[in-house]
Amino acid sequence: MSLNPQYEDIGKGFVQQYYSIFDDPANRANVVNFYSATDSFMTFEGHQIQGAPKILEKVQSLSFQKISRVITTVDSQPTFDGGVLINVLGRLQTDEDQPHAYIQTFVLKPVSGSFFVEHDIFRLSLHDV
Amino acid sequence: MSLNPQYEDIGKGFVQQYYSIFDDPANRANVVNFYSATDSFMTFEGHQIQGAPKILEKVQSLSFQKISRVITTVDSQPTFDGGVLINVLGRLQTDEDQPHAYIQTFVLKPVSGSFFVEHDIFRLSLHDV
Repeated sequence: MSLNPQYEDIGKGFVQQYYSIFDDPANRANVVNFYSATDSFMTFEGHQIQGAPKILEKVQSLSFQKISRVITTVDSQPTFDGGVLINVLGRLQTDEDQPHAYIQTFVLKPVSGSFFVEHDIFRLSLHDV
Repeated sequence: MSLNPQYEDIGKGFVQQYYSIFDDPANRANVVNFYSATDSFMTFEGHQIQGAPKILEKVQSLSFQKISRVITTVDSQPTFDGGVLINVLGRLQTDEDQPHAYIQTFVLKPVSGSFFVEHDIFRLSLHDV
């Protein structure tokens, strides 16, 4: 039970690193290395999956190539196990689609001097009006 | 280290209960009862506070009375300590202001048969375009 005082820098650094890999079509599949084989949960547009192999499958099933992303805000909080809760608000555009606002939440879990993504929830900000 | 299989119902139930209190001006201050005196973090529009007394102060400083809210999606995941990570995407309108999309993330921490809010991050979905 200890808070990591660097949570703000860890959050911002992680977001930059994660998206620099995800947004490069040639490199995208390597985001799998951020996840645990068994102890990572992903909820992608309401679809729930668990564990790196299924997460890789999901990432590889994404049909777009090009992605442009603008981060609006990154809010981080320290968790009591030394990890970091991260909330990202941004906008993205895939290939020639309309740009959309989105939210993504990560929980980083500390493990032997590094972190893995224990929780990942992604949603496009689409509202019935 | 155990997952609560009821995480989906707990998430939805909590969101309904929390907002029914928060959205009632006469009752709003009672949301403080969801937080721990020391072990709750709130980030409200980028402003970070910790502990129920400061959270109550923040809630009581909100200047609007009426709030209309429409929940778009609630995504929940079980955490490994038996808690629940909850992501809410919705729209709200305070008094006669413009309606805005917003995101709110909660982490519920189990304690003696119930839960408290360990983490709470709120952001209006406002983007520089």
